[in-house]
Amino acid sequence: MMQQHMPSMINNVAVVGGTHGNEYTGVFCVKALERQLQQQDIQNRIRYPFHLSTVIGNPVAHIQNKRFVDTDLNRQFSYDALQKAKSISRSTSQNIMVEQQRALELNELLGPKQFHDDVDDDVPPKMDLIIDLHTTTTNMGVTIIVGQDDVLTTQCAAYVLQRCPFTTRILIHTHANQKERPHLSSIAKHAFTIEVGAVPQGVVRHDKVEEMQTALRLTLEFLQRWHDGQQEQLYNELIEHFDSGNVPCYRSAPAIREGEMSAKLQWPSSKDNPNFPLWIVHKSVQDRDFTQIQTGDPLFVDLDGTVIPYDGAYGSPIILMFINEGGYYYGSSGTGISVAVQDEFDLETGSLLSTNNRKMSMTRTNSNDNDNNNNDDIKKNGQQQQQPVETAATTTTTTSEL
Amino acid sequence: MMQQHMPSMINNVAVVGGTHGNEYTGVFCVKALERQLQQQDIQNRIRYPFHLSTVIGNPVAHIQNKRFVDTDLNRQFSYDALQKAKSISRSTSQNIMVEQQRALELNELLGPKQFHDDVDDDVPPKMDLIIDLHTTTTNMGVTIIVGQDDVLTTQCAAYVLQRCPFTTRILIHTHANQKERPHLSSIAKHAFTIEVGAVPQGVVRHDKVEEMQTALRLTLEFLQRWHDGQQEQLYNELIEHFDSGNVPCYRSAPAIREGEMSAKLQWPSSKDNPNFPLWIVHKSVQDRDFTQIQTGDPLFVDLDGTVIPYDGAYGSPIILMFINEGGYYYGSSGTGISVAVQDEFDLETGSLLSTNNRKMSMTRTNSNDNDNNNNDDIKKNGQQQQQPVETAATTTTTTSEL
Repeated sequence: MMQQHMPSMINNVAVVGGTHGNEYTGVFCVKALERQLQQQDIQNRIRYPFHLSTVIGNPVAHIQNKRFVDTDLNRQFSYDALQKAKSISRSTSQNIMVEQQRALELNELLGPKQFHDDVDDDVPPKMDLIIDLHTTTTNMGVTIIVGQDDVLTTQCAAYVLQRCPFTTRILIHTHANQKERPHLSSIAKHAFTIEVGAVPQGVVRHDKVEEMQTALRLTLEFLQRWHDGQQEQLYNELIEHFDSGNVPCYRSAPAIREGEMSAKLQWPSSKDNPNFPLWIVHKSVQDRDFTQIQTGDPLFVDLDGTVIPYDGAYGSPIILMFINEGGYYYGSSGTGISVAVQDEFDLETGSLLSTNNRKMSMTRTNSNDNDNNNNDDIKKNGQQQQQPVETAATTTTTTSEL
Repeated sequence: MMQQHMPSMINNVAVVGGTHGNEYTGVFCVKALERQLQQQDIQNRIRYPFHLSTVIGNPVAHIQNKRFVDTDLNRQFSYDALQKAKSISRSTSQNIMVEQQRALELNELLGPKQFHDDVDDDVPPKMDLIIDLHTTTTNMGVTIIVGQDDVLTTQCAAYVLQRCPFTTRILIHTHANQKERPHLSSIAKHAFTIEVGAVPQGVVRHDKVEEMQTALRLTLEFLQRWHDGQQEQLYNELIEHFDSGNVPCYRSAPAIREGEMSAKLQWPSSKDNPNFPLWIVHKSVQDRDFTQIQTGDPLFVDLDGTVIPYDGAYGSPIILMFINEGGYYYGSSGTGISVAVQDEFDLETGSLLSTNNRKMSMTRTNSNDNDNNNNDDIKKNGQQQQQPVETAATTTTTTSEL
């Protein structure tokens, strides 16, 4: 059965690399794509049926081989952050940060950001879809990051997941709307991120370039078929593979501390260098992204060699991801290790099963204290791990990080 | 048999981390050592019989999480570079670079650099020995880097090599004298570098911290025993292990291009970013440090995916090291992959066997064109690989890089 939604039009697509200036793999893949498009141009061949743009996200930081100059660019695209940047740019007394300025430029070039829940009220953004290319120093393999409830991008993610010849996972943003999402890709109508690791910052590895290029090629292949009106055929192919109608994915656990986007196991920083960790990730956890730890398991180690165990704050057992990500040594990027929740989304609607279950359970209990019911639902869906404690209040601030 | 040289006095030792600001492991180990010394101070215990100082090599670059601010600090300590920095610092019209300024400070603090071949003419440096802690993004494991003809540090390297429970190698500088060496450690009487990989820049891995700490602990243990007058006992222990009297090591192959410190297989850089590679290291070579390649083997790949094979410029087969080192994306650090030569040094004198053989062969042939004789000598010493073409003129510019 085909979904009821009107299929999104795909006429303008941007591929962005270097949103974090020291993530060289994305920049290399953007440059390789530019070469490919140039060659086609010389040969008068049009490969893609939509307009395909390439962009270096943060060229100033890239030249400096830094994640960012002043603050993380990929946290500057919430509606509020853009409004703030706009107001500073108009002010004669305040200095605008490099990344605030760049966010305004990119919003002009690829956006503008839609700021209503009902997108019909907004000026449509120039890009129908942004594919943002990222790397991580963690052993995450290839991870496709998309928002929930977006039929186009969740099905595209399922398409890449099914066809990639190497380990690939889907990570779902649980933000209800585009307005709050701080990521560069959120200024287009649809957001799609390809995250590849492990690769050091400021280094290009051929094997990781190939993984990113394969995921990118499959993404563009899906978009091309979607543009050509093959939505029903794509859905039928996917449902044949995901025959329950559900696609396995991960999402970030909700934050329990105010101001955080999502659950983080944090380390303290050095007094004389706020970006230098005073505790480091314990070797028993290093490189073991998407595996479980329990309360009392070694998690960090300090300068004296003292082991700091997991304190159980997010429940037990929990799944970790972005373990020892170099970018997360920075406060403005969100210090710490992310806590992941195993989930599934509905292929037809792109909605997370846990969200649906939570909504049902909230209606049923008419209370915010729905943890037990929610855990029951999760178990019914065949999940292995226990969910961390979450409340309706924290759920709205949840997102995945990249 | 004990060597004839007078044993060096070890009264002042400095441990330096962060000579490259984004090599976090060395900084973490320096901070951990500072904690250890502080604890001993509180307990009124003196663990080391010599004065042990700790230094952050490039604190400005470290705060910025960059290898360097203006230019590679670890290339600023040749006699000529220090003289140039001194002259700029006195000039009112010229701006001094951050690393030139820091080189002068460190030379004052830990040196001064000895500039005569016969060191008796010089003011003795404040430090008898500098242990400089480095990391690499390459899969080199633990590498101890010392100069040739130095009995103290070559025996210390052999001591660490023998006792480390993980893969450890020795890399020997073939500079004839201290004067030309551009490295920070060369301003002390004796230079000792511990290089650990693979670890991303700007990231601390617990397993790599442990490797660096083990190598550092063994180094300090050797120095302590040396200080305590156990030179003969140390030598006897080592000769029992290295019973031929020869210790296996590597050295850099000589440069064939003017201005280079040592043999490098280079990639071209992007026009719009001189530190961004236009070619990347082929996946068949990645992570295979200290293995051989032959003429025609895949070496690089370009933006179009075209494979660039090894052209045989340094002979065939050759051994590679520092394969895809993130620091070597910078011109001032020496762009490219290093070519290694397998060698051995004499435990009694610290002299390289190949150098001894070359000297003999040069006397014998009375000619610079001694490649064939040299290759014969190498083969006699049980080496596997062919030596690259080298002449007396290029030999003097050879060094290992870090």
